[in-house]
Amino acid sequence: MVDNYKIQRALISVTDKTNLLPLANALQKFGVEIISTGGTGKILSDAGIQFTEITEVTGNPEAFGGRMKTISFQIESALLFDRERDAQEAEKLHIKPIDLVVCNLYPFEQYIAENPDSDKLIEYIDIGGPTMIRAAAKNYRYVAVLTNPNDYDSLIEELQQKDGAVSLETRLDLMAKAFNLTADYDSVIAQKMDSLTGNDSVRFSFTGGKTLRYGENSHQSAAYYRASKSASSLYDIGVLHGQELSYNNILDLQAAVQTTARMSSQGCAIIKHNNPCGAAESSVQLRAFELAWAGDPVSAFGGIVAFNTPVNLKTVQFLNFHDKANKKFIEIIAAPAFDDESLDYLKTHKNLRIVTYTNAMLEDAYEYRIANNTLLKQSKDDQLYSKMEVVNGDAIDEKQKELITFGLNIIRSIKSNAIGIVRRTPEGEPQLVGMGSGQPNRLNSIKLACDKAKLNLGCSTLKGAGAILLSDAYFPFEDNVDKSHKEGIDLIVQPGGSIRDKHVIERCKEYGITLVFSGLRHFKH
Amino acid sequence: MVDNYKIQRALISVTDKTNLLPLANALQKFGVEIISTGGTGKILSDAGIQFTEITEVTGNPEAFGGRMKTISFQIESALLFDRERDAQEAEKLHIKPIDLVVCNLYPFEQYIAENPDSDKLIEYIDIGGPTMIRAAAKNYRYVAVLTNPNDYDSLIEELQQKDGAVSLETRLDLMAKAFNLTADYDSVIAQKMDSLTGNDSVRFSFTGGKTLRYGENSHQSAAYYRASKSASSLYDIGVLHGQELSYNNILDLQAAVQTTARMSSQGCAIIKHNNPCGAAESSVQLRAFELAWAGDPVSAFGGIVAFNTPVNLKTVQFLNFHDKANKKFIEIIAAPAFDDESLDYLKTHKNLRIVTYTNAMLEDAYEYRIANNTLLKQSKDDQLYSKMEVVNGDAIDEKQKELITFGLNIIRSIKSNAIGIVRRTPEGEPQLVGMGSGQPNRLNSIKLACDKAKLNLGCSTLKGAGAILLSDAYFPFEDNVDKSHKEGIDLIVQPGGSIRDKHVIERCKEYGITLVFSGLRHFKH
Repeated sequence: MVDNYKIQRALISVTDKTNLLPLANALQKFGVEIISTGGTGKILSDAGIQFTEITEVTGNPEAFGGRMKTISFQIESALLFDRERDAQEAEKLHIKPIDLVVCNLYPFEQYIAENPDSDKLIEYIDIGGPTMIRAAAKNYRYVAVLTNPNDYDSLIEELQQKDGAVSLETRLDLMAKAFNLTADYDSVIAQKMDSLTGNDSVRFSFTGGKTLRYGENSHQSAAYYRASKSASSLYDIGVLHGQELSYNNILDLQAAVQTTARMSSQGCAIIKHNNPCGAAESSVQLRAFELAWAGDPVSAFGGIVAFNTPVNLKTVQFLNFHDKANKKFIEIIAAPAFDDESLDYLKTHKNLRIVTYTNAMLEDAYEYRIANNTLLKQSKDDQLYSKMEVVNGDAIDEKQKELITFGLNIIRSIKSNAIGIVRRTPEGEPQLVGMGSGQPNRLNSIKLACDKAKLNLGCSTLKGAGAILLSDAYFPFEDNVDKSHKEGIDLIVQPGGSIRDKHVIERCKEYGITLVFSGLRHFKH
Repeated sequence: MVDNYKIQRALISVTDKTNLLPLANALQKFGVEIISTGGTGKILSDAGIQFTEITEVTGNPEAFGGRMKTISFQIESALLFDRERDAQEAEKLHIKPIDLVVCNLYPFEQYIAENPDSDKLIEYIDIGGPTMIRAAAKNYRYVAVLTNPNDYDSLIEELQQKDGAVSLETRLDLMAKAFNLTADYDSVIAQKMDSLTGNDSVRFSFTGGKTLRYGENSHQSAAYYRASKSASSLYDIGVLHGQELSYNNILDLQAAVQTTARMSSQGCAIIKHNNPCGAAESSVQLRAFELAWAGDPVSAFGGIVAFNTPVNLKTVQFLNFHDKANKKFIEIIAAPAFDDESLDYLKTHKNLRIVTYTNAMLEDAYEYRIANNTLLKQSKDDQLYSKMEVVNGDAIDEKQKELITFGLNIIRSIKSNAIGIVRRTPEGEPQLVGMGSGQPNRLNSIKLACDKAKLNLGCSTLKGAGAILLSDAYFPFEDNVDKSHKEGIDLIVQPGGSIRDKHVIERCKEYGITLVFSGLRHFKH
């Protein structure tokens, strides 16, 4: 196999004309014979670049409204024959090698977006392009194939460095790209054609696999990948400092930034075992951190902390890295950005992972789970409520609505059955003061949340604390109200929708509890 | 567009010769001219079926060690030209239409499995086949394309019914299959070629999307799909009765059958919000159900119940469907099979979903999560322990090891932090009597599990109950031992591995608690 293989003859036929001329110029400079087709050829001749019409090579006309342009014994032979084994046979058949194919495929999803009828759609399917690309890719030991205008520059550079030759390594890379392109192209077509037959199908492509040290546990191997075509991905998260993220880190980080992304003002959330155990907003970032931490100061240790605004030094000094007795250990700190002083401070902790994210990284419309060769797809739970209907008690004001919205955003991030208790601090800052997660029985979650809230607020009852109890799903029975009342809760928010709503409302009336129906359940598993 | 289009000329070139002759015979009977290539032609002529050599049509030799056989202006034109718009042009160019392509592609993954060197691998990439298939599929308005021997029979039947013609609907279906085949083919090649360049990539294909009523919550749209190429999938679960499964049902069902699949004897597990709240084994199925139910008789209502053996009438009568006051409502009952009497009984409950599964449906090696355009892949957590090392106390016997194994299987299905308490009934049956799930703090989980166990066993301490406490991860501090001791626990199983193990062991020694290290953590989120 030849490493640096000299390009002597190139076939150029592109739909995307970006960067075409610099490439053609470079090829001409190295004396490469260019073969080209209609539209591409027009641009070349306008620019004064010489080329051979493809019909001269194939001996066939361009036919059938452009359906037949390149496919021919001559072109595909020129791409496919083994330059060593088949040299004599090629000569006998008058086949001259083509060493470079430049060809791209118009993104089929863009045709689909035009919503054409099926006859029109079919017309768009390229047959000759993929054939050339695949033939050239198969014979990468001798042939280079350019399928993306972004790759032209580095090829030109290589031609210049190698006196018109291309290395085996480059040809191999280009080959892999070529088969990814044809796989992507037919994947989009297959999904669309399935839909025409009434079959809903999904194809995914992920790339850039990074091996993780292990999965959820050390006896599980793991890796993570980026969705090939996505504009933005959680994969692109910036790790400014610390060890690489672990499997559990990535999942917790997702939970953390999804919680903070919806917060207003200066927001902070702390995640432990995929549940938010602390969350708060304040006009001062340090306060938000302190208040979030205070939501569960025991569990917060070793947690994942996320902010929704650029982080400053004052905030991170709360971690007391330089005070051995009061030092707070966390696994990850995530924010849109960090100022230099805060970074310097944080970097003094060797094992801390410092991570930046953007909200764009969270912008996919669907959630997917793959369970035993089954795919589950669902739209995201990104609506907090459909109403705020006071079904018992006095009307709620804007400040209360704000606090409820803060609470609902947290509730939807807690594993079901989920209960959250939120309040405003004396300074008016929204704070999560208790939460109950992952219980098979809602009463357990109420108990867990209330116990935590009482502990945090240092009181034996929540009466008068201005605490709002939020539930991810409706109360199935009045016992949930009884328990809440016993703990001193006087405002409950839940979706409503139980056949026993009437009884639940009645019980709230008895206790003088304000009950608000939000209209939307937020189960999360 | 013509609906029933008569087949007059067919091109057959197949690697998989299955069902070839019946198809060729049928085509011959309808007077279809068959064009064929080397290996396929040999079989046809041996069977006395007349055909035209492809070289006669193309005017080209088979060349370059078989790399060039079909690709030609003549063949692809015959497939691609528009039978109406391009009719005159085709006549002028001496192109006679080909109305049927029979072609398949040797599964590339099987070549890869042979572990060939990259030169050999490249040799296996088919260029002519996909070109023919894609050209025929593009022109499905006039051309039929058979890519799978399993489709020959129905095509023969259709030819017989329609006097040698094929309907538009069939051609459309075959077209969609064709593009799925070429997409699959290039997907496998792309992944393999990526790996040669050091890029770990993953491609998935799912099909047969069923729209679900909604996702985890009613404001989320949802659908589920089957992995296209898997031999077995949870998607294939049999719903014998009741409404279609919901999104949450499918996830809970997975958790349920993954728990029971590893049980021995007659096993039963009850899932609520994705956590097992009850589980037991017995030599009698009814007993297993009763004992599992007793693990959390409140939460079990509305739960998902799974068995690991065929279900009988005695077992399901425990649900008391005909006793209004004592009726037990559950969402799903799942088992490998149901006998007729049990089915008749269960079907009297209109809303109950009755579901059959096989262990084969659980046989995929990896778990995947897709989070914001990132794919997380990990091998399954299917090893229960790496050791059973008694680090304090007396040696444990086989019966205890069995019970610990039972417990570890459940622990790995509980969301972290997870604590499970198991015991043997006076009759010797392993039973889950308490569990704590989804807590940010392990002490919470211990408390939840012990409270439940005391309630279930009707005692104020677990002392002398023969209860074993299992933890999904190591005890970070001695307070976990203190709490367990206070509740009367005298056998603890946890993975070990903390830097404070020494102190934890020491504390167990003080209390006379037997401590077993299992060596494997079982985080689940």
